[in-house]
Amino acid sequence: MPRQSLDMVNEALAGERLALARLLTMVENDTSEGRAALDYLYPHTGKAHLVGITGSPGTGKSSLVNQLVKSFRSMGVEKVAVIAVDPSSSFTGGALLGDRVRMRDLSGDSGVFIRSMASRGALGGISRTTVSVAQVLDAVGYDIILIETVGAGQAEVEIARLAHTVVVVEAPGMGDEIQAMKAGILESADILVVNKCDLPGAERTARALKAMVEMTHPARPGQEAEKALWSAPILLACSTDCQGVDEITRAICAHYVFIKSSREWQRRDYERMKNNLDLLLRDLLFQRFIQRVGNERYQQVLELLTDRKLSPFEALERLLNEG
Amino acid sequence: MPRQSLDMVNEALAGERLALARLLTMVENDTSEGRAALDYLYPHTGKAHLVGITGSPGTGKSSLVNQLVKSFRSMGVEKVAVIAVDPSSSFTGGALLGDRVRMRDLSGDSGVFIRSMASRGALGGISRTTVSVAQVLDAVGYDIILIETVGAGQAEVEIARLAHTVVVVEAPGMGDEIQAMKAGILESADILVVNKCDLPGAERTARALKAMVEMTHPARPGQEAEKALWSAPILLACSTDCQGVDEITRAICAHYVFIKSSREWQRRDYERMKNNLDLLLRDLLFQRFIQRVGNERYQQVLELLTDRKLSPFEALERLLNEG
Repeated sequence: MPRQSLDMVNEALAGERLALARLLTMVENDTSEGRAALDYLYPHTGKAHLVGITGSPGTGKSSLVNQLVKSFRSMGVEKVAVIAVDPSSSFTGGALLGDRVRMRDLSGDSGVFIRSMASRGALGGISRTTVSVAQVLDAVGYDIILIETVGAGQAEVEIARLAHTVVVVEAPGMGDEIQAMKAGILESADILVVNKCDLPGAERTARALKAMVEMTHPARPGQEAEKALWSAPILLACSTDCQGVDEITRAICAHYVFIKSSREWQRRDYERMKNNLDLLLRDLLFQRFIQRVGNERYQQVLELLTDRKLSPFEALERLLNEG
Repeated sequence: MPRQSLDMVNEALAGERLALARLLTMVENDTSEGRAALDYLYPHTGKAHLVGITGSPGTGKSSLVNQLVKSFRSMGVEKVAVIAVDPSSSFTGGALLGDRVRMRDLSGDSGVFIRSMASRGALGGISRTTVSVAQVLDAVGYDIILIETVGAGQAEVEIARLAHTVVVVEAPGMGDEIQAMKAGILESADILVVNKCDLPGAERTARALKAMVEMTHPARPGQEAEKALWSAPILLACSTDCQGVDEITRAICAHYVFIKSSREWQRRDYERMKNNLDLLLRDLLFQRFIQRVGNERYQQVLELLTDRKLSPFEALERLLNEG
């Protein structure tokens, strides 16, 4: 690693926020210096509690995350980080509208670090770069890392792959919709929150979720034993007046204790590492293959494909025979 | 292709619904017969108009899709198909709760075909299998294929990769949220719908979306010329009493005419094919690599990784040196 990068890494380890921000940019851009820094930092990882927080737009998720950060800080957690992932944006590292509002709210607190990320267009979506950014924050000593992402469906699945604890945020009324009731979303959730509980229908949404959770409960293969011990609580909250926020914080802590005392922490770590390594391998194998075949030849085959002169599988075979 | 598969394909081409359903299952399962069938059908593709419809849960998207199907049929479109993708579910091919409701509504119409798909856990999310299923429906003569998926963020990005026309559905109130206002989601939309316009705040949401669309407008590199000619309309609708549905149908038709008369149709076809071929290549290269290295060795390296004895990039390098 170049001397300059090493200095930056050591400054970040010593708690320098500017060095940390620059380091994260290097890692996000996946430069060779970024990779070297991650190699260097990697033995320091494995301590942080990664908490994924997801939910549709309109559920008030971002302000809830703010309140959770304050709640963790006030109960004595030394260092809390937030990674806000926007899978619809290609802007990165900068201050998006929502983050500027948030940053103003939390900016006075040196125990809090907030990072915005974009993942638009990334294969594997939010996973690969988010894992690397979380590893850096873990290595430099953040105890709890809240990974927030917008989305329903795919986002829950992906965040479940990279977090120890998954919090799914709903809002009243949404639980009534058939789509939102599909078992898949609930399967990933360790904690369910009905936010905006001052709105009408909150209790009804909570009851509907409860019925769904009970229905889908023992259906996860390979981890029945653990799952049987943790039943996802359904909590009501109103983040604008802080109602119910401390209950969520406590549920997150309870889930931490639960997964630490079962094999679940190791299992989730393993899943995250495997997923991350698979994505790295896929990217690299693909890049090397295109280099071998040549980009020009690749474009030719693509043209035959769009002209319907080759089917996708015929195109695949032709390329593989040449690469 | 085995005789049995060929019969099935020919029956599907002749309009047999049961044969079509069985063919789609083969294609979804990515069997060698399924691939052979796609090879055979591929020259017949390229005619259907692929319309992606996405939106958060709670926006009433599914019932809107139903109304759109009826609207297209009543204006004389002969064959309309719906692919309902659930990225949070691992159930596939079957009748999910929402689809059973829907099927009852449309089951009397032989010009309509509905297919439910799950994509939980799939790398590249909804893309690869959905493209194949759409190709089959295209080849057997469906004129319009509505591809519906739940989700905010990543889902819009992915559906933009595989559709000619992208319809993003919002509901009143949601547009007020900072997250929903992020430019990324709007960038993918060719048509914006504020559904449930009987609820308070619909006009305000429409105005907020309009302001955002105007702000983000000329910012798409590589296609400024086309984009300048199509400005995404923002339409109010209430799918429960069919209000505004025909306006959406007409806007979809107008967008069809627009992209057919510009280079946009070809560009989107090319993007979809490229994305699909890339995913196929990545899958196959990865499978072959793991075969060469051996699954046991791969597990050993993964263990070194989770024990923090190797960093992700060191693990990658070690595997590549062996594979």
